[in-house]
Amino acid sequence: MRIRKKKWAMPYMQDHPEYAVLEPSQYVGKWADRFANPKAPIHLEIGSGKGQFIIGMAQKHPDVNYIGIDMEDSVLAMAVKKAVEAGVKNVQLLLTNGGDVADLFKQGEIQKLYLNFSDPWPKKRHAKRRLTSSQFLTSYQRILPAGASLEFKTDNRGLFEYSLVSLNNFGLHFESVNLDLHHGNEEDLAANVETEYEEKFKEKGPIYKIRARFPD
Amino acid sequence: MRIRKKKWAMPYMQDHPEYAVLEPSQYVGKWADRFANPKAPIHLEIGSGKGQFIIGMAQKHPDVNYIGIDMEDSVLAMAVKKAVEAGVKNVQLLLTNGGDVADLFKQGEIQKLYLNFSDPWPKKRHAKRRLTSSQFLTSYQRILPAGASLEFKTDNRGLFEYSLVSLNNFGLHFESVNLDLHHGNEEDLAANVETEYEEKFKEKGPIYKIRARFPD
Repeated sequence: MRIRKKKWAMPYMQDHPEYAVLEPSQYVGKWADRFANPKAPIHLEIGSGKGQFIIGMAQKHPDVNYIGIDMEDSVLAMAVKKAVEAGVKNVQLLLTNGGDVADLFKQGEIQKLYLNFSDPWPKKRHAKRRLTSSQFLTSYQRILPAGASLEFKTDNRGLFEYSLVSLNNFGLHFESVNLDLHHGNEEDLAANVETEYEEKFKEKGPIYKIRARFPD
Repeated sequence: MRIRKKKWAMPYMQDHPEYAVLEPSQYVGKWADRFANPKAPIHLEIGSGKGQFIIGMAQKHPDVNYIGIDMEDSVLAMAVKKAVEAGVKNVQLLLTNGGDVADLFKQGEIQKLYLNFSDPWPKKRHAKRRLTSSQFLTSYQRILPAGASLEFKTDNRGLFEYSLVSLNNFGLHFESVNLDLHHGNEEDLAANVETEYEEKFKEKGPIYKIRARFPD
């Protein structure tokens, strides 16, 4: 997402170290200790944007700890602001440099992964940059236990077509596929927490979703 | 498809034994001999209906032999009529009883499989009857060589969602997924041969398609 730089972003996050982690590499292997309940499993959203999804999930599932990561300080600061206002105890928001997530977490430190409305990188020569490419899946596998779940949703048809093939070819086991999340399956919809983007675009076309498990 | 019984169907097919095979079980292992070029690979469409797809494919690919099977004599007879009119040399149309396809072909006798707009069987308790269920995939595997291709298209969202999961869980390797065949990828569209149903319904909503390979 292209957004305007916000001058207040960095100072605001520095004022809220209880939520914002600006140098996440120092906590590798120690993330549990940053939560009120260190024994809860940690679920990670890569590209958490303005935070509506991750904070909504945290409110809906108080027994799970959530980490959201994003590269854009101006966006992450808005997520931090939402966390402050919501007063949630089970969210941490990390500013990353876009490097390998496997440098931020130890194997098994993350129990489940969410990817929401990732950059589609429509050009074929940029396919490796898509967050569902084999290169990224290899990184995710290094931070998750065997058999861990991944949930992915997007409104981008090309990205979803690519991702179905990529996840299958990598050996992930599909649990469910939904080709129009907001019309149809009531169970999927009841469990759904919308992102800001989804709220805005869900009436323009289908939202695609897959739940899959990494190989055992 | 529910269709009106046609009195002319059986006599017409009996008059055209060069295309219509009314007792297919007698040709198990000998299908190649029924074609002008017995050395060409045989591709099978299960549920060939009125035959527009299989005969269109036969015209487009004269170096491939095609077999279409269907349970409805009134429908199959219309496919036979189309074959007679087109004068194709590489099509055989089989009337089946809906039993196991593995009883009609020897292992490796069929090189590739097509499923088009199969009955969606929307009720969960009928899932096993869907032509992409593990039960059917097991049968297909018994007539195909290892690594053989399957192409499946449908306009039924629920059936496609189910099929993506079922094919993945069975261990098929996805080659491509198209979530709106008639809008977008020009290459897929140029290769596409429409069924009667597709021609009629392609403007009402997306036609979904997957190309996948059985495990090696």
